[in-house]
This record gives sequence, C-alpha cells and structure tokens, in this order.
Amino acid sequence: MVSYRVEKDFIGEKQVDADAYYGIQTVRAVENFPISGVRIHQELIIALAEVKKAAALANMDVHMLKRDIGEMIVKAADEIIAGKWLDQFIVDSIQGGAGTSINMNMNEVLANRVLELMGKSKGDYFHCSPNNHVNMSQSTNDTIPTALRIAAYRLTQKLLGTMVQFHQGLLRKAKQFDEVIKMGRTHLQDAVPIRLGQEFGAYAGVISRDMKRIEQACQHLLTINMGATAVGTGLNAEPEYIRKVCEYLRQQVQFDVTTAEDMVDATQNTDAYTELSAALKVCAVNISKICNDLRMMASGPRAGLSEILLPPRQPGSSIMPGKVNPVMIEVMNQISFQVMGNDHTICMACEAGQFELNVMGPVIALNLLQSIKILNNGFDVIQRYAMDQLEANVQRCRMYVEQSFGVITALNPHLGYDTAAQIVKEALKSGRTIKEIILERQLLTEHELATILDPFQMTSPGIAGIEFLQHQ
Amino acid sequence: MVSYRVEKDFIGEKQVDADAYYGIQTVRAVENFPISGVRIHQELIIALAEVKKAAALANMDVHMLKRDIGEMIVKAADEIIAGKWLDQFIVDSIQGGAGTSINMNMNEVLANRVLELMGKSKGDYFHCSPNNHVNMSQSTNDTIPTALRIAAYRLTQKLLGTMVQFHQGLLRKAKQFDEVIKMGRTHLQDAVPIRLGQEFGAYAGVISRDMKRIEQACQHLLTINMGATAVGTGLNAEPEYIRKVCEYLRQQVQFDVTTAEDMVDATQNTDAYTELSAALKVCAVNISKICNDLRMMASGPRAGLSEILLPPRQPGSSIMPGKVNPVMIEVMNQISFQVMGNDHTICMACEAGQFELNVMGPVIALNLLQSIKILNNGFDVIQRYAMDQLEANVQRCRMYVEQSFGVITALNPHLGYDTAAQIVKEALKSGRTIKEIILERQLLTEHELATILDPFQMTSPGIAGIEFLQHQ
Amino acid sequence: MVSYRVEKDFIGEKQVDADAYYGIQTVRAVENFPISGVRIHQELIIALAEVKKAAALANMDVHMLKRDIGEMIVKAADEIIAGKWLDQFIVDSIQGGAGTSINMNMNEVLANRVLELMGKSKGDYFHCSPNNHVNMSQSTNDTIPTALRIAAYRLTQKLLGTMVQFHQGLLRKAKQFDEVIKMGRTHLQDAVPIRLGQEFGAYAGVISRDMKRIEQACQHLLTINMGATAVGTGLNAEPEYIRKVCEYLRQQVQFDVTTAEDMVDATQNTDAYTELSAALKVCAVNISKICNDLRMMASGPRAGLSEILLPPRQPGSSIMPGKVNPVMIEVMNQISFQVMGNDHTICMACEAGQFELNVMGPVIALNLLQSIKILNNGFDVIQRYAMDQLEANVQRCRMYVEQSFGVITALNPHLGYDTAAQIVKEALKSGRTIKEIILERQLLTEHELATILDPFQMTSPGIAGIEFLQHQ
Amino acid sequence: MVSYRVEKDFIGEKQVDADAYYGIQTVRAVENFPISGVRIHQELIIALAEVKKAAALANMDVHMLKRDIGEMIVKAADEIIAGKWLDQFIVDSIQGGAGTSINMNMNEVLANRVLELMGKSKGDYFHCSPNNHVNMSQSTNDTIPTALRIAAYRLTQKLLGTMVQFHQGLLRKAKQFDEVIKMGRTHLQDAVPIRLGQEFGAYAGVISRDMKRIEQACQHLLTINMGATAVGTGLNAEPEYIRKVCEYLRQQVQFDVTTAEDMVDATQNTDAYTELSAALKVCAVNISKICNDLRMMASGPRAGLSEILLPPRQPGSSIMPGKVNPVMIEVMNQISFQVMGNDHTICMACEAGQFELNVMGPVIALNLLQSIKILNNGFDVIQRYAMDQLEANVQRCRMYVEQSFGVITALNPHLGYDTAAQIVKEALKSGRTIKEIILERQLLTEHELATILDPFQMTSPGIAGIEFLQHQ
Repeated sequence: MVSYRVEKDFIGEKQVDADAYYGIQTVRAVENFPISGVRIHQELIIALAEVKKAAALANMDVHMLKRDIGEMIVKAADEIIAGKWLDQFIVDSIQGGAGTSINMNMNEVLANRVLELMGKSKGDYFHCSPNNHVNMSQSTNDTIPTALRIAAYRLTQKLLGTMVQFHQGLLRKAKQFDEVIKMGRTHLQDAVPIRLGQEFGAYAGVISRDMKRIEQACQHLLTINMGATAVGTGLNAEPEYIRKVCEYLRQQVQFDVTTAEDMVDATQNTDAYTELSAALKVCAVNISKICNDLRMMASGPRAGLSEILLPPRQPGSSIMPGKVNPVMIEVMNQISFQVMGNDHTICMACEAGQFELNVMGPVIALNLLQSIKILNNGFDVIQRYAMDQLEANVQRCRMYVEQSFGVITALNPHLGYDTAAQIVKEALKSGRTIKEIILERQLLTEHELATILDPFQMTSPGIAGIEFLQHQ
Repeated sequence: MVSYRVEKDFIGEKQVDADAYYGIQTVRAVENFPISGVRIHQELIIALAEVKKAAALANMDVHMLKRDIGEMIVKAADEIIAGKWLDQFIVDSIQGGAGTSINMNMNEVLANRVLELMGKSKGDYFHCSPNNHVNMSQSTNDTIPTALRIAAYRLTQKLLGTMVQFHQGLLRKAKQFDEVIKMGRTHLQDAVPIRLGQEFGAYAGVISRDMKRIEQACQHLLTINMGATAVGTGLNAEPEYIRKVCEYLRQQVQFDVTTAEDMVDATQNTDAYTELSAALKVCAVNISKICNDLRMMASGPRAGLSEILLPPRQPGSSIMPGKVNPVMIEVMNQISFQVMGNDHTICMACEAGQFELNVMGPVIALNLLQSIKILNNGFDVIQRYAMDQLEANVQRCRMYVEQSFGVITALNPHLGYDTAAQIVKEALKSGRTIKEIILERQLLTEHELATILDPFQMTSPGIAGIEFLQHQ
Repeated sequence: MVSYRVEKDFIGEKQVDADAYYGIQTVRAVENFPISGVRIHQELIIALAEVKKAAALANMDVHMLKRDIGEMIVKAADEIIAGKWLDQFIVDSIQGGAGTSINMNMNEVLANRVLELMGKSKGDYFHCSPNNHVNMSQSTNDTIPTALRIAAYRLTQKLLGTMVQFHQGLLRKAKQFDEVIKMGRTHLQDAVPIRLGQEFGAYAGVISRDMKRIEQACQHLLTINMGATAVGTGLNAEPEYIRKVCEYLRQQVQFDVTTAEDMVDATQNTDAYTELSAALKVCAVNISKICNDLRMMASGPRAGLSEILLPPRQPGSSIMPGKVNPVMIEVMNQISFQVMGNDHTICMACEAGQFELNVMGPVIALNLLQSIKILNNGFDVIQRYAMDQLEANVQRCRMYVEQSFGVITALNPHLGYDTAAQIVKEALKSGRTIKEIILERQLLTEHELATILDPFQMTSPGIAGIEFLQHQ
Repeated sequence: MVSYRVEKDFIGEKQVDADAYYGIQTVRAVENFPISGVRIHQELIIALAEVKKAAALANMDVHMLKRDIGEMIVKAADEIIAGKWLDQFIVDSIQGGAGTSINMNMNEVLANRVLELMGKSKGDYFHCSPNNHVNMSQSTNDTIPTALRIAAYRLTQKLLGTMVQFHQGLLRKAKQFDEVIKMGRTHLQDAVPIRLGQEFGAYAGVISRDMKRIEQACQHLLTINMGATAVGTGLNAEPEYIRKVCEYLRQQVQFDVTTAEDMVDATQNTDAYTELSAALKVCAVNISKICNDLRMMASGPRAGLSEILLPPRQPGSSIMPGKVNPVMIEVMNQISFQVMGNDHTICMACEAGQFELNVMGPVIALNLLQSIKILNNGFDVIQRYAMDQLEANVQRCRMYVEQSFGVITALNPHLGYDTAAQIVKEALKSGRTIKEIILERQLLTEHELATILDPFQMTSPGIAGIEFLQHQ
C-alpha cells in the first residue's frame, strides 16, 4: 500500500509518495510533461549537484546560509555526485519552463535528503527549504546553464580522448598502407593512381582538424553565469558569493570555469551550445563521408570494389548465409545523421530565445548531450571493432591500377591533352593498351614509357620523365 | 553467480547469460552498438512479433513449417504481443545492419521461448532455429520495414485521435471568443480589429489541414513488403505464403495492410517514412507558430500583452515568487523543434539508401516513432492542461482596439490613403484622436464616423459606410 | 544626363528616374534592400499582374472603380502578362515587409503606365493612384499570397509535366533491361541476383509516388484569399467584389482557384507552401538516392562497377585526357541538396509567422519558386541528356552474378542457414566454387543444383527446387 | 546575322558564336546545365583569374610555359581581375562536374583573349590551348577550390568589416540606454528590472563572439591546394611550380595563403566550407534572436510593447494608412533563415564527397558565397537604416517596471519565497500594490521597502537591503 505526504506551493496542494526525496514541484512536472520518456542525462544531474554544492559553500562563506544547513546540503550533494539518489530525478528531458523542473527536482531531493540527515520529516521545508536554502542566491537561469556547460564540457573532453584513439588508428593505417598503390577516383570515375595510405592520411587530416574545432568550440562552455540569478543582473546574489561560487565550482570540476564578464549576455545567449553543436555537426559530415568511402572500398566481396577488408562482427543477414556487412561503419553514418538532425533542433531552439532567457533549454540539453555521447560511443566502437583490424586487399588495388587508363594523365606534358585523349578513346574502343598504341604511333619509346608510366611515381608531385621533355 | 551457455554462429562463439531468451546475435549486437542507450520502441517490438506470428501461420499453411513448431512460435509471439518478455529486447536503437539485430533479437527470443515451451534447453536451436524456423521465408529487409510501418501507422492513428481533441478544443475556443474584439497585428504592428474567436478559428483551420495531411501521409505505410525477402525479388518466399502472410497480418493488426505490387520498389525505397515525417514536420511548424502566438498573447501579466490567460500549472521560477510561465505551450515549441530536427535526420538517412536497401533503417525508426510519440503527448497535455481552461482578457483586448489607430483603414474608401495617412501621422504626433482631427477638418460628420469606425463591423467583409460613399 | 521627378509619400520625398514606371515606394525598397541581387521571379510578377487585372475588373463591377480608369489598369496589366515592362520590377527577392514592396512596385508600374496611356505625366497619381485605384479593395496580404500561389501552382504543373517524361523514360528502361541479370546489393555487399529492369522499375515506382505527392501537395495552392485585405477579415472589400475577383482570376489563369472559406486562416497561415516544399523535398531525397545508385553503377570504366554506361556529355577533366564524368547525374544531386536546404529555409520562415500574418513571405517565395524551377530543369536535362541514352553493360552485370556467392541463399530451404553459411565461408577461403563443395559433400545432386541455382529464377518469388524439398 | 566558328574536343564538334571568347566546353556546359539561371559569383571569377595568373607566372619560372604565351595569359588574366570580360562567364551556378565547366570557361576565355592579343583567330588553340597552356600544371580540382577559398575569404573579410560597424552601433546603444530602466522578461513573463543598455550590451556580446567565430572559421580557407592537380598527389606539377604558384598567389591576393601540407587531404575534404558555413549559421541564429527581440520591443505603436522606436523607412502597408513596419529587422530575419537553409545544403553537399574529390563543389560555392554576401548586406543596412537611429521609449519602459510585480524578487531574502509568492498572488487578485500589503502586514517598514525596491539597484549584483537582513 502506497502512502503519501501532502505538499503545498502557491498553486495549491499535491500528494507526494511518502518515501520520495523529490517534492511537489517534481510531481507537477511529471504530470505536466509525460513527453519523451527520456530522463535527464546523468551527467547533467551530477553537474547540477556540483553547482548546488558550490553554491552552498559560497553562501556559507558570505554568511547567508547557516553552517549547519549548508554543510548538510554539501553532504547530500556529494552523495548525488557519487551516484546516489539518481532514481529520484524523474522529470522528462523535454519539458516546459527552461529547466525549472530539473532545478526544482534537484532542490527538492537535496532539501529532503538534508531533512532526513537532520532527523526531520520529508516535506518539512521550514528547516531546509528547496527555494530558500538549497536554491539560495540562485535561479534556474544560472544553475541550469552552468550545469549544462559543465556536463557538456566534461563529455566533450571524453569525446576528444576517444577521437585521439581513432585519429591514431588512422595514422597507423596511413603508415601501414603507404605502399599500397590503388586507383584514385574522382566522380567515381578512374582518375590517377594514389596510395591507400595517402587516403587514410587524408582521413586523419580532417579528423585532426575536427578535434581542434571541437576543442575550440567547447571553450565558451567554460564561461559560466553563476550569480546571474533571474536575468543576469545578479539580483539577490552578493558579489562575494559570485566570486566564491565560481572558485568552489572550479575546485570541484577540476577545469577552468570562469564567471562571465557580462552576465546578462551569458544568461540570454545560447551561442556556446550552437557553436559546439556546429562543430560536432561539421565532424559528423566528415566522418560520414569517410564511412561512405570505407563502405564503398569494402564493397563486394565479389561484385564490388573489394579494396579493403573489414573484420566480421556479426552475421549480416537473417536470410543470406555467410553474408557479412560493414555494420560498424553503418552505425557511424547513422550517428552522423542523428548529430546533424540534433544540430537542427538545437539551432531552432536557440533561435527561439526571447529577451533575457532562452526557455528552450531542456530540448537543447537533450540534443547536445546526446550528440556528444553518441559520437563518443561511435568513435570508440568504430576504432576498436573496425578500423583497428581493417586490412588492404593489395592485389585488388593494384589490379585496378593496371587495368585503368588513368595513367594517361602522366603523358599530358609529353603528348598534349588532345592527343592523349584520342589515345584513350582508341584504347577503350579497340581493347588495346595505351602503351601499344603509343609505340605503334612512335610517339614515345619503350624506355620513355617505362619511366613516365610508373604508377608509384605518379603518387608524388612532379612531371614523370621531365628529362625527356627538356630534350625536346 | 552468473552462469552462461555458449552459442555459435558462422563468425564464432559467444557466452550468453544462461537465463536469457535472446542468443548469440543479440549479444554480438549489444557488444557492437553501445551507442544511444535508448532501447527499441515498444510498439516496434510488438509489431515485429505480430509479423512473426503472421509469418508462422502462413508458413504452416504452405507446409514449409511443421505445425508443432509453428504453433509454438505463434504462442510465443502472442505472449510478446501481450507485453511479455519485453525486457529481452536489449539491442540499441542506433545500430548498424538495417535492423538485422532487431530481427535476430526477436528471432532468438521466440526460438528460445519455443524451446522452453517444448521442454528443450535454450540455445538448442536444432529443434527450433531463429533463422530456419522463426525467420522462415523472411528477411530483415521485409520484416523490419513491415513492423516499422505497422508501428508507425498505429501510433499515427493514436496521434490523430489526440489531435481531434485538440482541434475540437480550438473550435470551442473559437466559439467562446467569437465576440471578443481585439487588435489584429501584422508585423507585430497594430493593424485592424479582429475577433479573438477568428484567431482561434484560424488555428483550428490549419490544424484541421494538418490532420488531413498526416492521415494521408500514413496511407503509404499500409503497403508492406512481406515476402520481398532479401532484395524484393521474393527469393525463398512462395507466392501462396506471400498472399497468406499479408492476410494474417491484416487480421492481426485490424487495419488494411496490403502487399506491394512492386516489392523491389517497396524494399529499396523509404519514401513512406520521409512522407510521414514531412507531414509531421509541417504540423510542427504550424503548431509552433500557434504556440508563439499564444505565448505572446499571454505575455505579462503587467509588462506584456496580457490578452489571454493560461491556467497556472506550476510555479514558474525557483527565485521569482508568484511567477507563472506558459510551460505547457513552451513544451510544445520544444517538441516541434525536435520533430523538425528528427525530420532532418530521417531525410539524411533516407537519402543514404543504396541499391536494393536502405541500411539506415534503425535511425529512421528511432526518429520517426519518437516524432509521432512526442507530438501525440504534446497535443494531449497542451489540450488538457492549457487550451481547455484558457480564458480571454476581454477588457485588455478591447482597450488595445480603443487605443489604436488601426481603425483608420476603414476610412480609406472615404478619404483616400494619403489623407488618411496624414491624419494618423498628426494623431501620433499631437496625441489627439483620429476622430477629433477628422471632425475639425470637416472631412466626415460625427454620424458618418460612428458608422464607419465601428470595430465589430470591421471584422467582417465590406466597406463600412458604403452608403455615404455612394452619395458622393 | 539623368533627369528625375520627385514623388512623395507620408514618410517624405524621393527622386525617381523620370522615365521610370515604378515610383517612390519602389525606390525606397531598392535603397532599403540591396541584399541578394536576385530579382523577383518572373512567374510571380506575371501572376501578380493577373491578380491586379482581376481586381480591377471586379472593382468596376461593384462600381467602386470608374470604368475609364479600370479599363486602363486592365490594359496595362495585360501588357505585363504579355511580358512587357518586366525590367521595371527592380526590388530584391529578399526584402522586409511581407511583399509590400513587390506589391507597390506593381501598383506603381501599373499606375504610371495608366497615366501614360491617359496622356498624363508619370507620378501624377491624382488621376490614377497606386494605392487608391490599382490597389483598391486589396492589401499586400491578399494579393501577394494569391500571386505566389498562382505562380507556384503553374510552375508545379510544368514540373509535373517534365516528371511524366522522366517517369516514362524510367519505365522504358525498366522494360529494356528486363532481361539483364545482375547482382543485387544490400549494404553494398553482394546479396542475391536481381534484374536491372527491376531496379529501374523501382525507380519508376518511387518517382510515380512523388508525382502524386506533388500533385496533391499543390492542391492547397488553389485556395486563395483575395478579399481578405489586411488581416483576413475583409475590411474594405465588398462581398460581391470578393466573389467576382476570384471568378475573374479563375478565367484568367485557367485553373480552378477558389476563395478560402476562412480568410483569416488563409491570410495568417503558410502551410500550403511548407506542404508543397515538403513534397518537393521528399522527391529530392528520392531522386538523390537514384542518382547515387546511377553514379555507382556507372563507376569505372575500369576501376569501378561499370554496370551501366552513360552518354558522354562533355570532357570530364581539364587535366585527365579522355575522362568522362556523370555530370548530368551529379547536377541532379546538387539540385536535390538545394531543394532540401530551401525547404529548411521555408520551414524556418513559416514558423516565424506571427498573429495575422507571416511577414517572411519574400524569402519563402524565393526559395519555393527556385525549388520548383530547378527540379523541373533537372528532370528535364537528366531525361534528355542521360536517361534516354543510358545503356546496360550486360556482360559485366552477368559476370558479377557468376562470380558471387549470393546465389547461396536459394540453398537455404534445402541445406539450412548454418550449413549454407559454412559452405560460403569455405568457398571464400579456398577459392573453390559453392557447387564443387556441395557436390563433394554430396549435399545435393548436380541436377538439383542446376535447378536451384538458376539466377533468373531467383528474381521472382518462390523457392527454387521446391519439388526436391517436398520429397524430403 | 549570327556567325559561328566550329570547335572540337574528344566528344565531338560544336558551333561557337564567332565573337565569343569562351569555347566548345563552355557551350556544352550551357547546353547541359540550364538549371538555376544564376551565373557564377563575380568574386569567384576574379579569384579564378588570379589563380590562372599565378599559375602562368609559376609555369614560366619552371620553364614549362614559354614566356611569350605566359605573359599574354597574365595580361588577359589581369584584364579579368580588373572587371573585363565578365559577360563571357555564362555557365550556370548549379552544374555537374565539380567546377570543370567554370574552370574550362575561364581557360577558354583566357586562351581566346591571348589568341586575339597574338593576332590569331579565336579557336586556333594550337598557339594557345585552354588545356595545355592556360591550365598547365593545374586541374579543376586544385584551381576551383583555391579560387573558392580566396573568394570566400575576401568576402568574409568584408563581412567582418561590416559587422564591426554593427557591433560598434550596438555598443553605442548600450551606452546610450544605460540609464533606461525597463522590465526584464523571461518566458515573455514579467521577471525583474533590467536596463535597456544591458540588453544591447548583451547583443553586442554575442555579436562580438560571432565575429571571432567567423574570423577563426575562415582561417582554414587560407590553406590552398594549388599543385594538387587531379587527386592531390601533384601528378604533373613540379615541386618548384607548387612553391612558386602559392607565392605568386599570395602576392596577388595580399593575404597569407599557404600550400597544404597534405594535398590529398586538401583536395578531397571540404571541411573548410562547412566550418565557415557553420560559423555563419551560428551568427544567423544569434542575429535572428536579436531581431525577434527588437521587433517585439518595437511592437505597437498602441497595441504592443512599444519600448523602442525604429526609424520609419517606407510605408508599411498598401492598405493601412500611416502604418510603418520594422522592415529592416524583418529582412535580417529572412537573411538568417536563408543562411540556415544554405548551411543545410552545404552540409548535404559536403557529406556527398567521395574518395579523392567532392564533386558537389558548385552548389557549395553558390550557397557559401550567397550566405556571406547577404549577411554582409544585411548587417550593413540594419546598421545604417535601423540600429543607428533606434530610440528608447523611456516612459513606456519605466511604466512597465512600475506596474509590474517583478520587483518582489528582491524581497526574497527578507521574506522568503513562499511569503513573497502569497503577496504577489494577493496583489494580483485584489489589485492592491505589493507595498500596501507588506506594510499592512507589518512585514517591513516603509524605509526598508524604499531601499529594497529600488529598481535601479536591482540591475546590479547584490542583495538590496542586506543591512536590514543582517540585523535579523
């Protein structure tokens, strides 16, 4: 049999599960927002507990909060930071109110845990009030953005660590495949020879820039607005508190958060999120292109290009025996599409800010944290389960070079574009080799051709057989 | 102490929790895709169980599947349809492989449940194999799209039911506010009078078109490709089976699914999803605009327009006492942004289809089902918690009409645009009323003005005071 | 030496080129909006002239507009409809003001042309005023949406005509390639055989649905709001005028426009545009996927799949002699991306509507008309320059089928999935054929294999060799 | 009577207008791509001419190109850079072929101009060939990306210059309005007082970050790939040429372009464009939010907030006399939506890169250059025509503060959240002031209230009346 306590706010009364640490405002939010079924991201809850801890410490320092209550709040917050009481955070990720329900869920859980530690009854907010004590000197409009920034920054650092592994994996492959000659393709048409290692080097290049972009894009997250309170003016937050709360938070999170110079700006604007999301999206575009390449190169085994081999991770088909699919690459494409869609949601939400606040914070948080998380998980598994054991099909790669007419480009400086084009046309039509036709027409000698048409030489800058040319 | 059984496939061996109904392929998928942490949508699981049931019944009819095994599969599928074993579906919503892991998770759970019903050990697939028996005549490429279509169609019907309520709520408000005169605004600038009821009528109008669009857009979901097997050619699916499986499925789901005439088309193309998502997005655009209007009209209470009053649903601020925010409207804006972003993801994923299949199905399913679900939940709560008790601030609405110069437009036919414009300019500058200036200049009589400037008359077609005009 | 006339409005005075048909408000708009450099789409100008003509005719009928002025307006409008004076429409496509500047540009050109026809001086608006006579009973808020709907509908009909050609081209190819057996691919991995004609049939299928979607999506464009005037209430528009203007417009445009039942709705909502844009976007997603397939099938000539041959349209490279690229397909991909981006712009703009009007009309018009136009042009050239002469590389297609193990799936019902998977694995490892291994293991006879492994049979529904199976 | 010359390439023959400087490949492109009707952006043409000039100079230095031809190419390129022959660039902005048609249009115009300067006939390419001489050591795949980078960088610098003006305008307004007390709003609901200057300061803050983001995002444009030739390997480009061409280009453009370390990377990847577009989009999101605020604050004049006054720029309505709309702000919103849509197109196009090249370059160039251009034009006119003369409605701003209950928040530390909330509720219900109720209940003295409720004090950090509190 479930028992209830009754709580009250200025709207009215509500029954709250007697055992619950959350209170009336959480209950209201659960009733109001049965939307996505997705709970608040755990990193955001923990970051918010860190914020509450720092605020309590600062409030005690400026003598606004009594030590006995303040220390209990710190203790309760530490419990949450350590992973306790997470089941008490029951509000939906998509909610109205700019995060007030998340903030109040936290305020209530902390207040009731403090009351419990004090030996008081839950709901007896006279001794420790969610609004007056836990939320002291704070507003949803500074605590939630600050917590989101901390959570996003921390997850982004984790993502960057994972990307380092992936990037190093690409560099290893670039080295491993440095001697693997293959056909370069533009427009999916045979172009000129290239080395497989050069392709992986190019992938490493763009991923390396993505890492820098993401690293840079998360710098603005380090500017927080604790002390902004309702609209950034700092009403009800003492200057000394503002200085202290940032200092305590810095100690807590162990990275270099600083207080915004202009807190009105920092409260109303959400460009730090769009900026990070944009960097993630640019990365998603790039990794999706790489994945598309990998899947094409791995196509086959018999009716495709088959230039690379991916490690088999699971049977690829419930009906086609022995079929293996590039599932680890495909999942990264899907992650990329999700990140791009999330960026769109974030941009729409950020554009919808009005005056002193953007009230669309919850959907921004949901999408931003998801984007970081799934990119991180994607880079992790693609590296461990696909890239690391990826092998080249050296023979196949070379075969394409030998069959193709792409080497003709090296003859340009020797024969001119038009003559060269005619030779290709004739070769395609007659089935004869380029070499045969050139020798027959006595355009170049066998010795000259051997020098000019060396495919390896074609993969580095310079005009092959320039020495013959200069004789001319 | 956890115990394991060992299962085997053509890739190798894996340990499976001894109690698990899922098997080796599910375990592989969980290892490969720790991406989003979001499990498969329950409606999709249930729809897939329905597909499996229909396939088993059809396979028995064409004598491909022995009755004793087939009936057990039906029984096990019925259990899942009734909500049992849902905890056994543990693969991530974002996964490589076009849904093979979802399909195999289902095949394995059913096979092991059948084995259990038979009194055999789990994993003893000789007696009932996930691939040979449960998946008989099927492929991921027909079962998963079919299940997704069923789930999406069913959820969309639910959404449409919810929208009916919302639409009726709007119509009630249109009627209730039919006499409430207020200032019409274009460019957020005072235009000419309108009735609040007309505005709600316009909202009802666009929502009504949205319902039709969504209803129409989900029709293509009713075309399924069961029997397509791997690439739509129907390899390994007997024509009689194809006929029967659709018939059984129709009986099961109780709506009119039919087999695609061109199954290659139905297997490779995902336009039914983009089409539905596009309709949802159009709806999201419209409801977001309505929500923006509502929030502006409800702005205040003192420093805003304050033309309507929303029921208070929760304290609006953790710091500002007595503040109440339009949270039920804001959540709908956020839902709209999510739906628009999801549409983007779905489009990217659909564009990425290649040849006989679109392998990005999982991320499409995740986003499409979420969009339908959150729109449904949003329309439900906005109706119940906001629209239903929404009231007009009649005095305030009228006050704006009286203060504004917008009524000048009615004088156009009488004075001409240029003269009227000058009068407004003078009124704005001098602080005098339009009426005073016109009378002073003897442009119209008091009687004429009374007739022409009646704001209620301005809210219906026609030239006010046309009788004076025709005297001229 | 340039000479000027001076015009005046309630803001002040401006110099206007003495020869210009446009007037002061156009000059203001040109000064205010030097944004994109893209002029108003010609179809929109012509549609707006048709609107003005219909309004003049209706205004004369209801005796609001004197015959001598009205008939001159009709004459001047007819000149524009015939393509005259188009150089006088000089306002930018991206402009503030919901199209007021486009409307006034038209009102001024017509008024000045009427004055000229009357033998009066340009700018002498007493005899024919842009606002009082040309714009009589009208507002930007009904004329511009109506003109946009007419222009968009007309262009869409043209697009649909072009798509019919493309669709028929696909059907011809489906028939022509009906006997071309090739390897089906899922996940870019060898799946099971399919006929090239089936693939083109699937392309035709989705394009056929796109045509229906677009046709359907443009129906709402036929609902116009002439007579709505400023906010949809019909202020200053006589009911008889409203009836007449629609009737005249219907006669003029020759398709079935009707007046909105709820003009407030029709004035404030822009869902007809988002709906059409969404249908265009769904089509763009589909045609882009088809183009991706075509480019992959045409890849080569030596280092790609080379399953189809596209007609050469231009040298593909400034450096690689003889290279030919699939440029006609690539341009269609780019058109698709543009249409998808435009849809995003349109959605953002439509979401930004407020109260009685969406003031973002100009950017909506720019993007919507561009999307229709470039899709039309794309379908036209892809059909004429690529699809029509596209050929199959029959030998290459067949070679892939013969080399691949995909036919193994047909053995599933005979050997079971696991045994079949082992055989593939052994074949891949040993380089032996599937047939050899099966015969060696005496799993099936040569006769049975010949029946079961017939690739053509695999492209239609059914279990190959079911007769052997039923012996079991 | 039009006369023609006949030109020939390896595809066949074409007639070319006898006077034209372009040649056969341009004619083919015009025939193939009648898509958008939008010509190539002039900045791109000029940048490409600069590239050609630098290449000719470098080719002469490495003795590949004869001085007499090379110097003529330089001369012809200089003419184009000076704005001559721009009418000869007739290919469409949306075209297949990765820009080959743009590159060949340039090669042909230069070759024919050189022939003319030499006194030869147009089309007599033996003496100066578009491919062999003008395009020497080059490929579309290095010249077009390099030209796009130069054009985009140059336009971006111009944009940044315009943004400086806008930013300074905001700072001036922040200073000018520093004393204007107004009601802060969150959720469009009355929050707590703020100064109008603080709001403009916040706008300046976010725009300042946007400038930094855009500045940063265009740095990667400075890395060029001249010498990459077809696929980035540098085939046919001498190392000394590669060094020289960059040096000459740097001299020409006067900013610090450098050659990519990894040219394969620089040729295949387009992240420099997505990065810049993303930064522009983030800026578009921010400026759109600012514009939304401005339009709401300027709403009225009688039935809106009317907190600020925008300069009238044009009559706002063709029907409503005297109406003035915030057209300069609206146009910026539309520009923002266009930039966001363009970003989507760019991302789709960039994701579609394959292997050694992204062939979607033309649509990327079209959208990227348009985004930069329209943002530049938008910031220019919004500053000159709106921001500069924008005024505060000081009385109205203050009136809202006086009418509102938002000041109650300052009483929180003194009365507690719950008591304060009850007072607001009672005040709202009874119509009495907060002050009256508090005094009646003897909660605070009149002196204390005067100190605590000073709205100016509320706009800076700190607890008003903390001295009374500490007495407690």
